[in-house]
Amino acid sequence: MIAKKMEGLVNNNSAIRAMFEEGKRLAAIYGPENVYDFSLGNPNVPAPEALNQAIIDVINTVETTKIHGYMSNAGFEEVRKAVADSLNKRFDTNFTEANIIMTVGAAGGLNSILKALINPGDEVLTFAPYFLEYRAYVSNYDGVLVEVEPDTTTFQPNVEAFEKKITANTKAVIINNPNNPTGVVYSEETIKKIAAVMEAKQKEYGHDIYLISDEPYRELAYDGVFVPYLTKYYTNTIVGYSFSKSLSLPGDRIGYLVIPSEMEDYKNIFAAASIATRVLGFVNAPSLMQLAVARCLEEKTDIEAYNRNRELLYGSLKEYGFECIKPEGAFYLFVKTPMADEKVFIEAAKKHNILVVPGSSFACPGYVRLAYCVSYDTIKNSLPAFKELAEELGMCK
Amino acid sequence: MIAKKMEGLVNNNSAIRAMFEEGKRLAAIYGPENVYDFSLGNPNVPAPEALNQAIIDVINTVETTKIHGYMSNAGFEEVRKAVADSLNKRFDTNFTEANIIMTVGAAGGLNSILKALINPGDEVLTFAPYFLEYRAYVSNYDGVLVEVEPDTTTFQPNVEAFEKKITANTKAVIINNPNNPTGVVYSEETIKKIAAVMEAKQKEYGHDIYLISDEPYRELAYDGVFVPYLTKYYTNTIVGYSFSKSLSLPGDRIGYLVIPSEMEDYKNIFAAASIATRVLGFVNAPSLMQLAVARCLEEKTDIEAYNRNRELLYGSLKEYGFECIKPEGAFYLFVKTPMADEKVFIEAAKKHNILVVPGSSFACPGYVRLAYCVSYDTIKNSLPAFKELAEELGMCK
Repeated sequence: MIAKKMEGLVNNNSAIRAMFEEGKRLAAIYGPENVYDFSLGNPNVPAPEALNQAIIDVINTVETTKIHGYMSNAGFEEVRKAVADSLNKRFDTNFTEANIIMTVGAAGGLNSILKALINPGDEVLTFAPYFLEYRAYVSNYDGVLVEVEPDTTTFQPNVEAFEKKITANTKAVIINNPNNPTGVVYSEETIKKIAAVMEAKQKEYGHDIYLISDEPYRELAYDGVFVPYLTKYYTNTIVGYSFSKSLSLPGDRIGYLVIPSEMEDYKNIFAAASIATRVLGFVNAPSLMQLAVARCLEEKTDIEAYNRNRELLYGSLKEYGFECIKPEGAFYLFVKTPMADEKVFIEAAKKHNILVVPGSSFACPGYVRLAYCVSYDTIKNSLPAFKELAEELGMCK
Repeated sequence: MIAKKMEGLVNNNSAIRAMFEEGKRLAAIYGPENVYDFSLGNPNVPAPEALNQAIIDVINTVETTKIHGYMSNAGFEEVRKAVADSLNKRFDTNFTEANIIMTVGAAGGLNSILKALINPGDEVLTFAPYFLEYRAYVSNYDGVLVEVEPDTTTFQPNVEAFEKKITANTKAVIINNPNNPTGVVYSEETIKKIAAVMEAKQKEYGHDIYLISDEPYRELAYDGVFVPYLTKYYTNTIVGYSFSKSLSLPGDRIGYLVIPSEMEDYKNIFAAASIATRVLGFVNAPSLMQLAVARCLEEKTDIEAYNRNRELLYGSLKEYGFECIKPEGAFYLFVKTPMADEKVFIEAAKKHNILVVPGSSFACPGYVRLAYCVSYDTIKNSLPAFKELAEELGMCK
């Protein structure tokens, strides 16, 4: 007998599993090159050669008991210092190793900080559409995730709706910028408005409200768009970062939390997040990978590859009559379905061997998400299928 | 403001931190070679050269997008198959990849299976003395850890006391064999008795009771002692394993869960534990390390190094008049303190630059734990200090 809290998750997982099986079934019939799978956010751009070299260098030059040994739950001090220095250089901040906790990816970091902060019944706000795992993360600590409804004209956070949703029980707000699933980058103007609302609400309710910035896509921003660093706009900000996309190593599970010294109750929050890392069973971020990424902080993934995909897929879909906002970051397109029920669209797309994720998986039905972190050829080859689909659905202009 | 559940953990952590600082203070005054730190279970035997070579081989021969990419939350299928095959060969079991979930160390595995099973208020039994983190792990899911009092003559599980502690609310039992902190290996006879009690209680209460076997020290067993493989004695058994000690890579966070097909509700439990791995933020066990350990399943740490330490430290302490059981496994000695208040002993030991962990940290006051995973020289050099301590406390025979 599994835990009651898990029952819904297990049932829901079967649906995702079914889609995965469908992809395999289609690939077996038509050949994998004729199935256009836009469902997974698994980067197709390989990790930079410098990362593999850094791993080999660490093995060849660092003492083995250190490479593979325990360290403080927050991570190696020199790795944390290297991360802080790199942030200071890029964002003109003033962090030290005392502000950095190395984590098991961004997902591990988010869980650690939520465990550190959330009491049962506390409300955590986030802006739809959002990565639905947030709901599970908050529920792990018996918090309640509260959705702020989207502004579907721009997919910038809906600040008016946000203000109304904050209550005396609001403990934290999660922001994901650049955004999954829309690819939108929240503007400085939006961030300033959010910060102003939160400052006012902190005063009104007489307690701290934390802004948790989930930033796995920070480095994936196109056309030089500005991605604000949130600790500079709001004091009680915690940043959760992952190297998963910037260095294409999602499987290795490495990221960090930034907990600024200026925060209220900084000392206890830093201690609590470190201990949460331990008691949740992470113990520490993988040691070899800590040492390796510290040597690759200036490395970048091949963003131009994603940019080419973006231009081709966005341009073509618009031409065929699909409705979507041009993404400025991440590697997702969020496309409006021509009928209210996205499931009808998804079934129609499947008949053309196109696999996409429903918007309801991001609390935003009537849309589908396309992950364009696939090969350029996959996109090129998928275009006739998209065109046929558009014609079939009467979408062409 | 941190979460209420974290407050006790943060306060308690300061005490551990204080001991760590004390070690650094003593090392600064007397030189690190004159401080005998037996407080940490961080293996001093380096990882086998074959592991470092396996990492380099993986990097040189496997496609980069695979090495560092996402895979199923349960882990790479071929890694899980290799683990199952290795278990089958060694323990005459019948596992397949469908029984293995790769985890972020044993701590990650325990958290995933507890999240999968535990409802608020469920009781989880364990045998004192035990690794105190179990309390935090169970509390993460609002379960209640119930201690079974120790049999201090043998430190085998106290089966009579165990039987009385099982109630209608008992959902699981955690066993740690070979044991931290005693070094005792639970005998086949003990295991059979525990299994018989649990079978009877399952019938009596009409619901499943799961045996969770935490086995990071399985390979650290001396003198050919037999360490029973628990799935062979009790059907509803889940094994949590870690490569931390067998391959000396605790920092890399890699282990696995074994969930046998014969278990009641196997399918849901396997699914729930995989999903728990995802929603707790582990997502998956570190990918490069999965591929590397799969190539090292027949590798062993240098157990003879630990054995030499064991013989020297145990033999000498007995000679000086200390009371303890000769450990058959792991790398710990659990020593009875000559006065009821172990804190008095710990302070006296500190004056001789000896650092040890109080038994109360394992729910067994009146004892201290010595981790002998240190260099042979540290042990040799510490002996005069132990002798002086024994003389000072009037313990010599």
